[in-house]
Amino acid sequence: MSTPDITGTGAGADAPAPVPVGQTHLLDLDEVGGRVERTELPGGLRVLTETMPGVLSATLGIWVGVGSRDEGPAVAGSSHFLEHLLFKGTTTRSALEIATAMDAVGGEMNAFTAKEHTCYYANVLSSDLPLAVTLLSDLVTEACNTAADLESERTVVLEEIAMRDDEPADSVHDLFAETLFGDTPLGRSVLGTVESIEGLTRDDVDGWYRSRYTVPSIVVTAAGRVDHQQVLDLVTAAFGDRLAGDTRPAPLRTGEGAVHKPARSAGLIARRTEQTHLLLGAPAMGRLDERRYAAAVLDAAVGGGMSSRLFQEIREKRGLVYSVGSSLSHYAGTGSFSVYAGCSKKRVPEVLRLIRAELDGVAAEGITPEEVARSRGQLKGGMVLGLEDTGSRMSRLGKSELSYGEYLPVREVLARLDAVDEDQVRAVAAEVFDRETCLAVVGPYRESDLDRL
Amino acid sequence: MSTPDITGTGAGADAPAPVPVGQTHLLDLDEVGGRVERTELPGGLRVLTETMPGVLSATLGIWVGVGSRDEGPAVAGSSHFLEHLLFKGTTTRSALEIATAMDAVGGEMNAFTAKEHTCYYANVLSSDLPLAVTLLSDLVTEACNTAADLESERTVVLEEIAMRDDEPADSVHDLFAETLFGDTPLGRSVLGTVESIEGLTRDDVDGWYRSRYTVPSIVVTAAGRVDHQQVLDLVTAAFGDRLAGDTRPAPLRTGEGAVHKPARSAGLIARRTEQTHLLLGAPAMGRLDERRYAAAVLDAAVGGGMSSRLFQEIREKRGLVYSVGSSLSHYAGTGSFSVYAGCSKKRVPEVLRLIRAELDGVAAEGITPEEVARSRGQLKGGMVLGLEDTGSRMSRLGKSELSYGEYLPVREVLARLDAVDEDQVRAVAAEVFDRETCLAVVGPYRESDLDRL
Repeated sequence: MSTPDITGTGAGADAPAPVPVGQTHLLDLDEVGGRVERTELPGGLRVLTETMPGVLSATLGIWVGVGSRDEGPAVAGSSHFLEHLLFKGTTTRSALEIATAMDAVGGEMNAFTAKEHTCYYANVLSSDLPLAVTLLSDLVTEACNTAADLESERTVVLEEIAMRDDEPADSVHDLFAETLFGDTPLGRSVLGTVESIEGLTRDDVDGWYRSRYTVPSIVVTAAGRVDHQQVLDLVTAAFGDRLAGDTRPAPLRTGEGAVHKPARSAGLIARRTEQTHLLLGAPAMGRLDERRYAAAVLDAAVGGGMSSRLFQEIREKRGLVYSVGSSLSHYAGTGSFSVYAGCSKKRVPEVLRLIRAELDGVAAEGITPEEVARSRGQLKGGMVLGLEDTGSRMSRLGKSELSYGEYLPVREVLARLDAVDEDQVRAVAAEVFDRETCLAVVGPYRESDLDRL
Repeated sequence: MSTPDITGTGAGADAPAPVPVGQTHLLDLDEVGGRVERTELPGGLRVLTETMPGVLSATLGIWVGVGSRDEGPAVAGSSHFLEHLLFKGTTTRSALEIATAMDAVGGEMNAFTAKEHTCYYANVLSSDLPLAVTLLSDLVTEACNTAADLESERTVVLEEIAMRDDEPADSVHDLFAETLFGDTPLGRSVLGTVESIEGLTRDDVDGWYRSRYTVPSIVVTAAGRVDHQQVLDLVTAAFGDRLAGDTRPAPLRTGEGAVHKPARSAGLIARRTEQTHLLLGAPAMGRLDERRYAAAVLDAAVGGGMSSRLFQEIREKRGLVYSVGSSLSHYAGTGSFSVYAGCSKKRVPEVLRLIRAELDGVAAEGITPEEVARSRGQLKGGMVLGLEDTGSRMSRLGKSELSYGEYLPVREVLARLDAVDEDQVRAVAAEVFDRETCLAVVGPYRESDLDRL
């Protein structure tokens, strides 16, 4: 339930020292993981690879440093819309040709858009890595974004919004962001709104593509049975003329300043659901804040597993919910802590009372040394277990580069978790849990009911 | 979208030859995967392991050959209810102790109940495998199932049912099974109903445990950084006195006979959803039917990937849906083929017309040799890629033993897929797609609307 983003981390406070273009740096060589190498190609393209012993596959990712946080309200959803459009065809390949090439080798190709980046990826047998590099590079650099494809895909995106609206456990997350961050880019859904999607023109979307999908904003990562030099050769061939000049990579994203108070105290989506789905939370630190390790330990102890306080008090002892848990989200410069629960309307008052009592207790007294030790163990074990597939390794490389500006070896992250003590956790709890909270609710309520919750 | 269960397969038509108790058999030793070994311990307990090079973790599974298919209507949901109750405590461990022990090492412990089996599993670093064996064995053999825990967990299960009801894409699957298989065990939800769960007594559930969780029905599987002899030693210590006598393992589950016609032509859950979620399908072959390989190729070509006919026609060319795809489910003696789509109500008639036209076309003419080749490649690549984590390997071992009564090496499954030709696919399509179909709908409709769909 808890997904603190501690896997790809670095202090990032200082800008990385300039790296000679074309030179490859060995960043890590370890049993937990393999050989991690990084090269900056001309034009500002960054390539990171990690070899993993024992696997037959590779996962390739092409990351672009653009997401919904970069959008104004009128074009909300442009980054995600583009992510769809890119699969519709390039100057040399139709949508069917793209899909057929990948399906024929049993590969999995897909993409996702987040608030601060977009990622196109493919998981293939390592012998099919050349195909994956060729296809994904073509999508990212040669998309046509025709008006006809835009019209057809507009309906698909609207259907995706409708699907999200039908899943209250999903909707409540978008509502929470809106309640916490208000009418700001971080407060808006990655999907955009029905209105913004209906209003997007071909010029909007293609213009977004041309201005944002530039080589200095792109990072290529690959993990699994890969060879760094082979990936460099493939990428160099695929990007061709774009790799020229002495352009530097785009700078690390910095946040516009921390948020200390929710925009609103509560938000509601009134739906005739069986369960009420709720998120209660507050602003938290951004991802470059060193206290994030202590925050991750706190989050794990409060709502990160079956032994956590919330799970034990609310589900195990009282049987009030099926799901309850906490999570941390980190962005550049800010973040959030939240508790999710889903339960029947009649149980909502008691569940909310118990959640608040637990957060208040921890804000006042912190957690026990045993909880600190257990949570550190949980995070460390979970991190190592979670990095056993090529996709999560590929993803860690991409986030390290785009979000942290630095690659931290796994053993270094484990050491930082080990260094977290009771006092650090207490300090984070006292600050974050003492803040004004906001509540997002999807369920059978009216606006006037919110004050009583 | 397509999940044909071809990964753990065997002909299974003939009973396996008797195996001397305590003797270990090497079933496979291959690059794709590792060393697979099987031992029958006294008391009828079966243990299968697979070593995977390069990984640091292990996934352990304890499988019990009981599921919702074994339940009468009055006790519907007992197997799933038990799966919850087992985590509430044993003769020597409280729920908190169980959760704390696993969280402290960062392991992931959980369970799932299906129509024909129940599985408890844990993914841990290999050094924590002894803990995983001890904990899961204790749950499965020493559960207390107290009346107080049953009352508390009853609410949790009712909340889980409510959560399913709030997720139309989930509800439509249970509705489809009911529409296809009617008032039979296969037609009922694994979760049971609100009525059956409210009616279950401690004697019902504990009696189900005592009669069904017997050693000859249990299979222990482990994959990853494991050693067969170590697992045998751990399991032998954990099961103790239960491993005595010359009891044979429970026989392979056989179906009660094939189903050729849906119980009803349509089923509706009327909900005010944004999208209409629909499943259209028909009965298909059981899992021991050798034609399942041809059926898997057919399913992949029709609705298994982005290049499939349904995805291309309905999403790519016309932009009518976000999700469309087909899937096969196999049980002992019977199975189903179905197409899922989710779209706004106004698009439902066209989407249904296109799905039916595609199925009719394939029933009449089969698929092209190019589609056969591509789908074979897709299934083969996907199978190898899908077996790269310890969890899927552990799962394949369990299904091989409980569902197929035979372990097939990966290369043998790949060879069987390679042997599928156009004629075999055409024969399956002509039979399955020519059957009477049934339609399950979750959306803003009335019963009287169903005739027009």
